Amino acid sequence: MAEWKVDKEKVFKDPVHDYIYVTDGLIWDLINTRAFQRLRRIRQLGTSFLTYHGAEHSRFTHSLGTYETMRKVLSHFEKNHGWPQDLRTKRLALCAALLHDIGHGPFSHTIEQVFKTHHETWTQRILVEDPDILAVLTEHVDAEFAQDVADVIAKKKHPLVVNLISSQLDVDRMDYLLRDAVHTGVTYGTFELERLIRIMKPDQDGVVVKKKGMHTVEQYILARYFMYSQVYLHPVTIGSDVLLRRIFSRAKKLHDRGDQLFMPEELRPFFENRAENVSVKEYLEVDESVVMYTLERWTSTEDAILRDLADRFVNRRLFGAVQSKELKEVEREQIREMFRSNGLNPDYYLEFHKAVAGGYQLYSQGIKLVDDEGRKTDISQDSGLVRSLQPETKYRIYCPKEVLRGEGRYKPIRGWMEAFKI
Amino acid sequence: MAEWKVDKEKVFKDPVHDYIYVTDGLIWDLINTRAFQRLRRIRQLGTSFLTYHGAEHSRFTHSLGTYETMRKVLSHFEKNHGWPQDLRTKRLALCAALLHDIGHGPFSHTIEQVFKTHHETWTQRILVEDPDILAVLTEHVDAEFAQDVADVIAKKKHPLVVNLISSQLDVDRMDYLLRDAVHTGVTYGTFELERLIRIMKPDQDGVVVKKKGMHTVEQYILARYFMYSQVYLHPVTIGSDVLLRRIFSRAKKLHDRGDQLFMPEELRPFFENRAENVSVKEYLEVDESVVMYTLERWTSTEDAILRDLADRFVNRRLFGAVQSKELKEVEREQIREMFRSNGLNPDYYLEFHKAVAGGYQLYSQGIKLVDDEGRKTDISQDSGLVRSLQPETKYRIYCPKEVLRGEGRYKPIRGWMEAFKI
Amino acid sequence: MAEWKVDKEKVFKDPVHDYIYVTDGLIWDLINTRAFQRLRRIRQLGTSFLTYHGAEHSRFTHSLGTYETMRKVLSHFEKNHGWPQDLRTKRLALCAALLHDIGHGPFSHTIEQVFKTHHETWTQRILVEDPDILAVLTEHVDAEFAQDVADVIAKKKHPLVVNLISSQLDVDRMDYLLRDAVHTGVTYGTFELERLIRIMKPDQDGVVVKKKGMHTVEQYILARYFMYSQVYLHPVTIGSDVLLRRIFSRAKKLHDRGDQLFMPEELRPFFENRAENVSVKEYLEVDESVVMYTLERWTSTEDAILRDLADRFVNRRLFGAVQSKELKEVEREQIREMFRSNGLNPDYYLEFHKAVAGGYQLYSQGIKLVDDEGRKTDISQDSGLVRSLQPETKYRIYCPKEVLRGEGRYKPIRGWMEAFKI
Amino acid sequence: MAEWKVDKEKVFKDPVHDYIYVTDGLIWDLINTRAFQRLRRIRQLGTSFLTYHGAEHSRFTHSLGTYETMRKVLSHFEKNHGWPQDLRTKRLALCAALLHDIGHGPFSHTIEQVFKTHHETWTQRILVEDPDILAVLTEHVDAEFAQDVADVIAKKKHPLVVNLISSQLDVDRMDYLLRDAVHTGVTYGTFELERLIRIMKPDQDGVVVKKKGMHTVEQYILARYFMYSQVYLHPVTIGSDVLLRRIFSRAKKLHDRGDQLFMPEELRPFFENRAENVSVKEYLEVDESVVMYTLERWTSTEDAILRDLADRFVNRRLFGAVQSKELKEVEREQIREMFRSNGLNPDYYLEFHKAVAGGYQLYSQGIKLVDDEGRKTDISQDSGLVRSLQPETKYRIYCPKEVLRGEGRYKPIRGWMEAFKI
Repeated sequence: MAEWKVDKEKVFKDPVHDYIYVTDGLIWDLINTRAFQRLRRIRQLGTSFLTYHGAEHSRFTHSLGTYETMRKVLSHFEKNHGWPQDLRTKRLALCAALLHDIGHGPFSHTIEQVFKTHHETWTQRILVEDPDILAVLTEHVDAEFAQDVADVIAKKKHPLVVNLISSQLDVDRMDYLLRDAVHTGVTYGTFELERLIRIMKPDQDGVVVKKKGMHTVEQYILARYFMYSQVYLHPVTIGSDVLLRRIFSRAKKLHDRGDQLFMPEELRPFFENRAENVSVKEYLEVDESVVMYTLERWTSTEDAILRDLADRFVNRRLFGAVQSKELKEVEREQIREMFRSNGLNPDYYLEFHKAVAGGYQLYSQGIKLVDDEGRKTDISQDSGLVRSLQPETKYRIYCPKEVLRGEGRYKPIRGWMEAFKI
Repeated sequence: MAEWKVDKEKVFKDPVHDYIYVTDGLIWDLINTRAFQRLRRIRQLGTSFLTYHGAEHSRFTHSLGTYETMRKVLSHFEKNHGWPQDLRTKRLALCAALLHDIGHGPFSHTIEQVFKTHHETWTQRILVEDPDILAVLTEHVDAEFAQDVADVIAKKKHPLVVNLISSQLDVDRMDYLLRDAVHTGVTYGTFELERLIRIMKPDQDGVVVKKKGMHTVEQYILARYFMYSQVYLHPVTIGSDVLLRRIFSRAKKLHDRGDQLFMPEELRPFFENRAENVSVKEYLEVDESVVMYTLERWTSTEDAILRDLADRFVNRRLFGAVQSKELKEVEREQIREMFRSNGLNPDYYLEFHKAVAGGYQLYSQGIKLVDDEGRKTDISQDSGLVRSLQPETKYRIYCPKEVLRGEGRYKPIRGWMEAFKI
Repeated sequence: MAEWKVDKEKVFKDPVHDYIYVTDGLIWDLINTRAFQRLRRIRQLGTSFLTYHGAEHSRFTHSLGTYETMRKVLSHFEKNHGWPQDLRTKRLALCAALLHDIGHGPFSHTIEQVFKTHHETWTQRILVEDPDILAVLTEHVDAEFAQDVADVIAKKKHPLVVNLISSQLDVDRMDYLLRDAVHTGVTYGTFELERLIRIMKPDQDGVVVKKKGMHTVEQYILARYFMYSQVYLHPVTIGSDVLLRRIFSRAKKLHDRGDQLFMPEELRPFFENRAENVSVKEYLEVDESVVMYTLERWTSTEDAILRDLADRFVNRRLFGAVQSKELKEVEREQIREMFRSNGLNPDYYLEFHKAVAGGYQLYSQGIKLVDDEGRKTDISQDSGLVRSLQPETKYRIYCPKEVLRGEGRYKPIRGWMEAFKI
Repeated sequence: MAEWKVDKEKVFKDPVHDYIYVTDGLIWDLINTRAFQRLRRIRQLGTSFLTYHGAEHSRFTHSLGTYETMRKVLSHFEKNHGWPQDLRTKRLALCAALLHDIGHGPFSHTIEQVFKTHHETWTQRILVEDPDILAVLTEHVDAEFAQDVADVIAKKKHPLVVNLISSQLDVDRMDYLLRDAVHTGVTYGTFELERLIRIMKPDQDGVVVKKKGMHTVEQYILARYFMYSQVYLHPVTIGSDVLLRRIFSRAKKLHDRGDQLFMPEELRPFFENRAENVSVKEYLEVDESVVMYTLERWTSTEDAILRDLADRFVNRRLFGAVQSKELKEVEREQIREMFRSNGLNPDYYLEFHKAVAGGYQLYSQGIKLVDDEGRKTDISQDSGLVRSLQPETKYRIYCPKEVLRGEGRYKPIRGWMEAFKI
């Protein structure tokens, strides 16, 4: 069970961390599993590349970066705060960081809604069911280790490790904010990682932050705030998600009613089973290649709606949006009716969308400051800046751009919609 | 035929150029064609992402960046050297830059060798045969424009524009060196783009460079030298290419002899026709999703060789390499025989590879310096540094790593190969 | 009076803007005046280099950078908003940007308090009284031009130009935030200059900002907030300022009472006259070399207090600080008395300091957002983030560190001070 | 004599290394000595700020950076190669890195030629003669330590440590190349510090470099080559140096013949004694404030030549240069005579300058590559690129720009000089 050192330290050249260091053979072997390599075929930001063309990076790179960030945090904690004291806990933290996204599927934030599946659940299942992963974890550590990592992902054990993986101030976010900023070309996500790590301390309740470093935490929180408003919740990206979800809803409907439809073996289980009946092996066979290939085939399928929607996504003729006030159900129904009476099925060509960004729940609770005397406060008590980050709710109506422009037969719809705009 | 200005200048946020500016509706409409959007689904560096995990960017981003670099060069030339004088020439240069890679297919540097096809030829065909592209070029400019752009790609007309697109010092290389450096995380590709553009001048024979800026050109040439040796010709990347080529050779063999084999409609024309009989429409339907999906299907195909090779590629169990001296055919045959007698088909599991990097032909000819009196010299005359960049030839033997390690039944092969190593 | 183009565009390589471009001979000639070159001998951030060792850059570099930022803004305004329409206004803006700090003296924010002088006043006087500057402005433009630039500095004329030079969103701050961030190594000052400029618009009341760019302005305002709290108001820097001010107070006292004291010719006018009686010629002879040399000489002067204080500054044995609550005058007097009774003159070795950072007046008023319909609002109405930036007041007691540590004879003072700490 | 850990690790924010870490009280106390703080008042690049306005950084920042680079190298060596084995050697290396420039005076590369003094000699003297430095070294380590550090500077002991401080591949150069690149804004100096350190190995003969990292060393060597040609040997900087040297030659002549002349106490010893008779205490009192203040006073001195030269330096009216062929003494004398007969003293207004950049001796010897079998070769054997870096000799004539332009009475000189130009 001793730590197996790889012959020589391995490094990965990385756009964010410069180098990612691997000295433990356990990590090296995990990276080389099929399940982990599969993350190369799943984009980190789903459909965001349709908004920011640089956002083409995969979950593989982010997973390595999350591991590296954890490695840096642990190295700081070990040197300055004597934690973790044992190798097993350290490896638990490193493995959880490396594997935290292993259950993600292609465009998962979007598609999961259609198939009622959750990547966190899949991550836990893969850890204990995938034979390769299980073997590596068992051989390098012990027979309970895989379950322990799964329990960390499930937030059931080792609260301090859980805190480092999944909290307001976790290594996952630290890496993705910096990484997404580099790839989108947006500088908003910048914060001082090194300094942030230096002010963090392990504590019985989780990670705390030295009070005198409050401004560094504020900078990190603001990086999140700006990345959410400028990148993650960009209206064009939301529009792409809406479109993708509509495509799969339509395909599911066609499939359910027995229409002829290109359906790759890999996707079939999702269309035919409840998620819990899909096996880990089946799950791991799905990646963006499968999905993209399927979408491309559907651009020439028989059903007019599916064909059109797929073509819009593949060739980037995305839905547009107008901001609206909050609409009552009766108003929504009026708009739907307008769509219907002009030949557009509102189930596929219309979405009333509500986006909530940057609120209190998201940002302020959970980051504890600690002063020199050991007194702890929530950062929202000390920082007006953090308190000011109230949730911003935006209502938008998504539909094809030609409708928004009132082209041809859509003129009447456009007129109607004017009434509901802000 | 007048320049149509988009309502407001459009910008793309970019990791390399910060912003990419589009003010001409012609460019905007080209970007929105299906053929151009398809470049999002083709990685710029083919299999390099298996070596440098950050190298996941697409030809779409590079094409935008090449356009932007051309825009900067033209802006400098117009202001300081009064060229181009007419809008049509300017648009010719911008369109050629934007579209220069539109004929690339997935992993094209690798797969083209199997199917005997050439992306330059496809670029020219697409320009004049794809109905969308043709329509945009014709409507915004005139009926001869598409052919003119194709002629620039074919290096037949407008030598100065050709020079800017395709020469020792062209906007294509300028963008890809900087972009690939950002995404791989390697800093070798850095040079001072702004300063390089400032010292360039249009001339009757093509672009020339002010002599006093020689060191800036040296820096650019060295960026190329380092990127070739560290990234483009990285042994792991070459090994991935060898593997991919083997996969398609094997599949072609199986297909030719009529074996049962998963074969998506999109790839069928390439397996069944000579490249020149494939239509532009068919060609544009192939992207990396198709290829990757196919490879994934082949990981469970019947044929043991194809199944194994595909699995190696998809799950990154790549071929390894040893450096060797230059081998005579008789020596090669001895090694092949060793493979055969140990149960490995050398047609698929062995490659004698010769890589040539950074030589004189590549680097020194064609960049003309001009002094204050207008005298021109080739940079290799003035710069010892450039002269020193002689071609470096490396011979390597590629085969499965277990063979190189002499595992199990491969022990005898390993012993034999020792004899041929440097 | 025509714009004189320099032979070829001149460029300065710059750590912030990459290149600074000069195409107007007027600007070139101004840069070469003695008064402008003198700015090389005055640090941009005064005593901050004692806190952040990288903060050694001069007002010369910042002045060039302010000019370059103005040039970028005007270039954007000309292209997109047709302003300024005439060359004279454009040059007015460029000259005001270049020369806005020309009246600064060494450590001026600190020393001005002792000598009751104001750099803004000196800037205006220099513009119309320095024969070189006056000659350049008059020859390149006209006889009224110098006064016009001075009036812009005095905020008397050309409100839009004034707005660009000196407002909540001016080119001065844009440059110094970015520049100070680079040199201190602190990343807090980062914001997207290019994007910020793109959303600015000239308007009859001054500059306005497109509402959809609100988050970009927030980012800029937060850059200021963080730079103030982390750099400009750093407790160590304030302590250095306190020390420097004490030195000059002491020297003035000694000089006034006729003590023997090293006094360079250049400083004599300030010790003997009221500021308004100092001539521009005399003023321009003072720079940091004079002040630093004088301080070094005072490290071996006869007066024990001045000698000690000067030595502390030159050899960086700075005052320390403790945070305190707000003290009543009677409490302050008690502390002063403790100092006196322990042999320390509180006039020189003690300061009750109040620092106010980041408040409403500073940040939120004056930046107007404008929506697509032309409606204007103050950003504080739309942004909770901006509203949250309330002034933060901190009270600190500054004195020698040995006192704070309660070393030797200072033990009783330390004890006493404990009572007043927060 | 045990390593005294500072209470908590101290950090300095740095533009190059992000953070500089100090954990040893020895280092902390050295930084706080007067002799070390004095380095804040000496610019790293002497007169280069007159060419690149950003080059205003001090030897203080570079000394910290050299220490930090050494710390990184030692940390890598300790972890991977088990060297240094004892704390004393480690501290020897760290102290030598931190203090290697402590003997530098203001503009020392220039002024030393006038006063026949050498900063290396001064560094050694200061280490053993300055009471503060000596006390810190003795108290933290032992009585022989100061002399040992001095011996390392003198290259007499500990060849491996000497190698790290002063060789073709030393921590001094690594830091200054990167630092000067940041401050000048020139990107040429970039190389991959982290990777360079990773391929270095301690060896009995000194530091060696793993052969497979050859391209990384090439990149470093080229960074030097470009920084020399573009920054360190920039013609404008050389011209500033010539001018400064002329000023001190003239002042020395005036002083020697007993002319009345402003002469600060601090400089007097250098004008009146041979360098070896100047005490360490006297030496340390000289900094750039003294020199700059003196130059400013000399701008209004009685002697016309000194007054003019000083004014040229202070107000940046520098000498210009023309390239020439190599001139024979008889030709030089003809030019000198022309100067004399036109009223210009060639001893002060004319320099025949020879600059040698980037040659073989500088670059190729001394960096040893080592292959996997332990065979060592000089990098020049393996790298054609390194071999190509031949010395480039340039001859230039420096004199006032008005002479070069042939203004007024200088027309005949200009005519004459034409004959000697290349």
